[in-house]
Amino acid sequence: MTTLPPAAATQLALAERVERLGTETVFAVSEEATALAAQGQRVYPFHLGDLNIPTPPNIVEAALRALRAGKTTYCPNAGIPELREALAEDVSRTHGVNYAAANVAVQPGGKPVIGKFLLALMNRGDEVLYPNPGFPIYESLIRFFGGQAVPYTYVEGPNGFVLDLEGLASAITQKTRLLILNDLHNPTGAECSAAELEQIAELVRQHNLYVLCDEAYFDVRYSGSSRSLVSLPGMAERCVILYTFSKKYAMTGWRLGAAIGPREVIDVIVRLNVNIESCSTHFIQWAGVEALRGDQSGARQIIEVLRKRRDVAAAILDSTPGVRCSVPNTTFYLYPNVTEALHGLGSTDYEDFRRAILKQTGVSMCTRLHFGPALEGEQQYYLRFAYSGLHTQEIEEGLGRLKEFLERG
Amino acid sequence: MTTLPPAAATQLALAERVERLGTETVFAVSEEATALAAQGQRVYPFHLGDLNIPTPPNIVEAALRALRAGKTTYCPNAGIPELREALAEDVSRTHGVNYAAANVAVQPGGKPVIGKFLLALMNRGDEVLYPNPGFPIYESLIRFFGGQAVPYTYVEGPNGFVLDLEGLASAITQKTRLLILNDLHNPTGAECSAAELEQIAELVRQHNLYVLCDEAYFDVRYSGSSRSLVSLPGMAERCVILYTFSKKYAMTGWRLGAAIGPREVIDVIVRLNVNIESCSTHFIQWAGVEALRGDQSGARQIIEVLRKRRDVAAAILDSTPGVRCSVPNTTFYLYPNVTEALHGLGSTDYEDFRRAILKQTGVSMCTRLHFGPALEGEQQYYLRFAYSGLHTQEIEEGLGRLKEFLERG
Repeated sequence: MTTLPPAAATQLALAERVERLGTETVFAVSEEATALAAQGQRVYPFHLGDLNIPTPPNIVEAALRALRAGKTTYCPNAGIPELREALAEDVSRTHGVNYAAANVAVQPGGKPVIGKFLLALMNRGDEVLYPNPGFPIYESLIRFFGGQAVPYTYVEGPNGFVLDLEGLASAITQKTRLLILNDLHNPTGAECSAAELEQIAELVRQHNLYVLCDEAYFDVRYSGSSRSLVSLPGMAERCVILYTFSKKYAMTGWRLGAAIGPREVIDVIVRLNVNIESCSTHFIQWAGVEALRGDQSGARQIIEVLRKRRDVAAAILDSTPGVRCSVPNTTFYLYPNVTEALHGLGSTDYEDFRRAILKQTGVSMCTRLHFGPALEGEQQYYLRFAYSGLHTQEIEEGLGRLKEFLERG
Repeated sequence: MTTLPPAAATQLALAERVERLGTETVFAVSEEATALAAQGQRVYPFHLGDLNIPTPPNIVEAALRALRAGKTTYCPNAGIPELREALAEDVSRTHGVNYAAANVAVQPGGKPVIGKFLLALMNRGDEVLYPNPGFPIYESLIRFFGGQAVPYTYVEGPNGFVLDLEGLASAITQKTRLLILNDLHNPTGAECSAAELEQIAELVRQHNLYVLCDEAYFDVRYSGSSRSLVSLPGMAERCVILYTFSKKYAMTGWRLGAAIGPREVIDVIVRLNVNIESCSTHFIQWAGVEALRGDQSGARQIIEVLRKRRDVAAAILDSTPGVRCSVPNTTFYLYPNVTEALHGLGSTDYEDFRRAILKQTGVSMCTRLHFGPALEGEQQYYLRFAYSGLHTQEIEEGLGRLKEFLERG
């Protein structure tokens, strides 16, 4: 056996772009929580946007059937026609736009759409607007692939968060080319009003922008129905939808999603599929067809479970001293303002505060900083709690401990 | 319903790099073959490197168990520890190198390793050596991500193909930084001798290169055992292995593979996993553990089936007028010299020749040009036949027709 010395022993130089590659810092939180649990402490994992709810059985059974039927060979790079058609039909119905199968490129998850959208449309030096706070991969990949990441933000209003439209408009320059819109928004749970979407559409038209509509939470809502920028006049030809099966159908670990948009962009994304991963798992795509076309009671039950968790979690948090928590109608996150509680503990530092809570109560969550660096002048403090991975009783217990801890001050 | 006008109606400009994005042109051949079959003609699909052999049942059952056990949530970005350990153990054993789990980044297939290797190590303008003829994605991604693609080649010898080492050495310049080595080689079936690997290792050391060892066919061999560049002194810290479950275990459509290499590079590749696709499908990774650690009789049977097909196909081709076909000990491809047959049909054009054969006999295959543009001075003509997707009887029938057609001249 040759033992393996580190590459450092050679003159390894990573590519320069690697310096600009970010990550999801939540995984560090995950590791801390795991280490604490390994020491025997009870940990309440509110940090990760995963679900502890089983995938609906009709979807599991469809995968088993396809696997047994030998759907284990390569399949078309763009996805099996049946899934592309089912997605086109479903999204056409919910968005009021006439998509065909050719507008759909199946992906191994929703996340791959972010990178492929940027690779297809962003040149070096192009400015790309992205939400901060927001999903950290946007900024990471914009910078990694040579673009200029330009943040816009969400501000806390009397009834939850709203997109800072004025800030968005004023961030646009001659070099702005792309907009990443995550309406319905992780972490704040904000969603744009019809009027706000109109204003965004106007900006997009005026400045000839193309848009990634990250709609990961489009169907994770507790009343009413979601709106999409795509539905407004002239927008469908400028928007690529990030669609995912992960949240709606509790399929996070299956890795199935799609890019849906104008044919010219989707054709490039399909060519990227050829180059990057050949195709998405064949038999899983048949499970996707069942998810879309089969019995929807599983998806409805998931929403009912999440609704109860949301209500329990929000009620406890909002009654906790120094914490103000609105109740979003969408996503499975709460994003309470904890400024008073943080100051009350004599802390001025997010990580200090988070670690104190983790250590004292076992409650593990993300802070605002896991969704991008704080913006200039930002003075309020926020935490993000994902309630999708804990049962109601665990939520009560964990957040009860947190409340007690903050009551003690 | 808003109907969807093409994006061309806007001022869509794709990113400049898209001009440099190639594809696998075999998919165009696939479409032609499908169209012909749809017209009722019998088609013999020798073009695609897929298998019509079922995945071994113990692997399928392991996936079913994991799926039923709820392995449907996210899992670690680098892969589940059990699979990383099983891969480290397996590849350490076959390569005589001491890999640990930390040297392994699980991927959704082998192909993703190509792009991630380049993103981690290649700067704009760096020269990257790649095989031509060879898997077309190498050249495509080198150019797409801003590198200079510099070909080296394989030449036909009395007993099959050999890597043109002299050509490889002379292609190295001050700007050469990476080497892509696909030993055992698609399409020629060539494999380097121990002495040739030594010479390559010497070049790698001298010029401080890093190497992608695409070992997709490492275990697809009919006698003896495979060698890897990785096993030579100083090479493990300079090489990233592309490992795939696709060919050995007939799992092409599952999408499961791994990057295996020095920790510093693997850490970056894991960070790329976080950014690009989060993780590979959770329950499929448990099937991968069974593939590596469970009963190996399935893999052995696959090889026996392929061996029979190879022998039948090679015998017919080599007895066909104007065709010279050696019998590689590895891969599931044949790469006969068809120069005389092509000239015999009065053709000087690959596509003409290929289409004539397809139309007249239903035999669909790739030409040399599906593996890169012909090099300066290249005067011999080659076709590539994949025998992995047809039963022996179909091979006899299809290649029998081809032989008859070429006998008629």
